[in-house]
Amino acid sequence: MTVLAFLDYASVFVFALTGALVASRAQLDLVGFVFMASLTAVGGGTLRDIILNRDTVFWVAQPSYIGVACLAALLVFFTAHLLESRYRTIVWLDACALAIAVPAGVAVAVAMGQPPSIVVIMGIITGCFGGLMRDVVCNEVPLVLKQGELYVTCALLGGVAASLAHYFGLPQPLALSICAGSAFALRAGSIAFGWHLPVYRAFPPQQK
Amino acid sequence: MTVLAFLDYASVFVFALTGALVASRAQLDLVGFVFMASLTAVGGGTLRDIILNRDTVFWVAQPSYIGVACLAALLVFFTAHLLESRYRTIVWLDACALAIAVPAGVAVAVAMGQPPSIVVIMGIITGCFGGLMRDVVCNEVPLVLKQGELYVTCALLGGVAASLAHYFGLPQPLALSICAGSAFALRAGSIAFGWHLPVYRAFPPQQK
Amino acid sequence: MTVLAFLDYASVFVFALTGALVASRAQLDLVGFVFMASLTAVGGGTLRDIILNRDTVFWVAQPSYIGVACLAALLVFFTAHLLESRYRTIVWLDACALAIAVPAGVAVAVAMGQPPSIVVIMGIITGCFGGLMRDVVCNEVPLVLKQGELYVTCALLGGVAASLAHYFGLPQPLALSICAGSAFALRAGSIAFGWHLPVYRAFPPQQK
Repeated sequence: MTVLAFLDYASVFVFALTGALVASRAQLDLVGFVFMASLTAVGGGTLRDIILNRDTVFWVAQPSYIGVACLAALLVFFTAHLLESRYRTIVWLDACALAIAVPAGVAVAVAMGQPPSIVVIMGIITGCFGGLMRDVVCNEVPLVLKQGELYVTCALLGGVAASLAHYFGLPQPLALSICAGSAFALRAGSIAFGWHLPVYRAFPPQQK
Repeated sequence: MTVLAFLDYASVFVFALTGALVASRAQLDLVGFVFMASLTAVGGGTLRDIILNRDTVFWVAQPSYIGVACLAALLVFFTAHLLESRYRTIVWLDACALAIAVPAGVAVAVAMGQPPSIVVIMGIITGCFGGLMRDVVCNEVPLVLKQGELYVTCALLGGVAASLAHYFGLPQPLALSICAGSAFALRAGSIAFGWHLPVYRAFPPQQK
Repeated sequence: MTVLAFLDYASVFVFALTGALVASRAQLDLVGFVFMASLTAVGGGTLRDIILNRDTVFWVAQPSYIGVACLAALLVFFTAHLLESRYRTIVWLDACALAIAVPAGVAVAVAMGQPPSIVVIMGIITGCFGGLMRDVVCNEVPLVLKQGELYVTCALLGGVAASLAHYFGLPQPLALSICAGSAFALRAGSIAFGWHLPVYRAFPPQQK
């Protein structure tokens, strides 16, 4: 299995766990779990493949990705009651999935010979849009847009780090590890320690 | 007209009726009716065609599909006040549209030589995503995700039934009829008699 | 620079301003501004390019479009506090963006030799879907669907005007100016003077 396929499988699995957990919060049935798990798992990568006009969307070429998402949904359906807080589990699993999906998006764009700006954007799309679709469909506040948290910023950092590593000629596995590590570290710091960038505040406060 | 084109036209028409009825609940004007009717009518099939990378999206190749959606919007605009309950009409028409759209998606995927798993998924996408877009845009609770109802399950059943029928060599019209019939029967049973699968319940109840 | 590229750049810039202003209402950080600005700016054109199956999505071929959206986000981040009402600014900038994006969509479809119906629809998609994605993601009431306002109707008028102008052999710059002018005039009239079409009202009022 290539590095690229491994990253895709891993991000599909972890994103699927978060989708299934959101389904558990919406009290869906098992098919609803599978639906939300699959949407979350392949949403970002599908958008990446469509925008890059790849010949075949990754999971159409290899339907076993959907099988992996189904497994994750089953796992959550029968074990989610063991969790103390599903919401915190979603947030942390989502952080892991983000950190895996960004290098997956980056690697595809690099393999297609895209310029650095598109490489970074494909990392962001692959990392952020699966979770965004999950949250929009289930009417949760999108994690992507939560005030005072870093999310897109983490994907951006990972993408930039990967582009720099690539530019300086580092071998691909190292470059992708740096990408995943920096994205996860920043996201984890934001969740655990409240790291954030200054947010916009209306001034004067009564401004509409 | 081929069976495939007939299914596409019929599902466009019936989904367009549901989109226009949702527009009537949001008190839009006639152009808003046409917009929502068209979005609902072609949303699922458009996503199917893009993901399968067909040369041309079905309604771009044949714009008369949009004309059919406009007709449905007009019809609803001038007759919806005759209905006793628009919501129940939406739910039942949506059930019909689902039962027509699933075989439409299945037939396209079979014609492209896709494996059974992709055939089933294309049935689900064509059947479920038009209504999902309608509900997300109009901020209604997605029918796809209503607790204690079968929806994606019906599309899944239809897709599996069609794949089995195809595998056993049944002629296409019969296979597609079985597909539509089983999807509609299950959905109708769920609406009328409350058929459902066990849903996930948080345990302990205070779990977040 | 071709007329077409100019229209795309202008609509990207103005739509990006509206996306960043919505981000300011959601109190996001600078990266959140860039994310919302980019999504709004290229959302409609991306959908147009994917549905028309163009070889390359416009901003993948030319990533400087994203740079323009970033500039707009920066501009808003540091100057939005000077505005008296961000909401009214969003509405009016969005009207400008609509009036630029519709001819951008029309021009692409004409250049690809599409029939008039698809030309009009591509104008509507390019004009309306960027703002629709912005509003759905940020959970604002979509401008596209606001009761008693003309929005899709303006895009429709612009598209029809452009098609007629094209049919009567007017030179392209004139046809596109008529398209933009008519769309903007109608939208401005709707915002400023409350122009609207009759909306559907439930009758009897207790109908559900």
